[in-house]
Amino acid sequence: MDPDALAKAFVEHYYTTFDTNRAGLVTLYQNESMLTFEGQKIQGASNIVAKLTSLPFQQCQHSITTVDCQPSGFNGGMLVFVSGNLQLAGEQHALKFSQMFHLIPTPQGSYYVLNDVFRLNYA
Amino acid sequence: MDPDALAKAFVEHYYTTFDTNRAGLVTLYQNESMLTFEGQKIQGASNIVAKLTSLPFQQCQHSITTVDCQPSGFNGGMLVFVSGNLQLAGEQHALKFSQMFHLIPTPQGSYYVLNDVFRLNYA
Repeated sequence: MDPDALAKAFVEHYYTTFDTNRAGLVTLYQNESMLTFEGQKIQGASNIVAKLTSLPFQQCQHSITTVDCQPSGFNGGMLVFVSGNLQLAGEQHALKFSQMFHLIPTPQGSYYVLNDVFRLNYA
Repeated sequence: MDPDALAKAFVEHYYTTFDTNRAGLVTLYQNESMLTFEGQKIQGASNIVAKLTSLPFQQCQHSITTVDCQPSGFNGGMLVFVSGNLQLAGEQHALKFSQMFHLIPTPQGSYYVLNDVFRLNYA
């Protein structure tokens, strides 16, 4: 699978899981994983998913505008940079966001998220 | 120097150089460096700086809104995620942008940019 197709598949999987079964994201992180969410740093799969599942909205829908990917230079890692819109249930306007992921291959032939930085793009 | 302070110092140096002496950015990249600029992939310090110096504006000023940083997990590397505004000379409104850098330490005790992804955030 070429890197761009792989990045796109990861991104689709990530946001579909976020929008339909947020707690299921726990399988994508490991203990050394880091999330910086609007400037707040969180480490470890369970802490990260605790943060994501406690965000002050229950229903949301991500739509992706751009996906850029580059090899991160080490051990088959991949950097994925996403921009898109986040529509919260009951809100009139979608929020714009940017997010980056550093994906690391697992021995099982999959990837996990080592680094995750999320920022809303305030207009 | 703590990682956040180092990231902030890098970001200030990068954008000051961009705004005052764009060709001088060449010292921050190496041959294996990659830039994805608005979806266009460019590799190598000289190609990257050729792209940046040929952008269709001569004068610009970056102002930084947020800087997030995380260790990239390998060899002292660091991921830096930036959001900010880009004011072009003669334009009324600034453009919003997001950019990520993957910084790798050099044997000389400095850092170079291995990965660079730039995107405008269209409102």
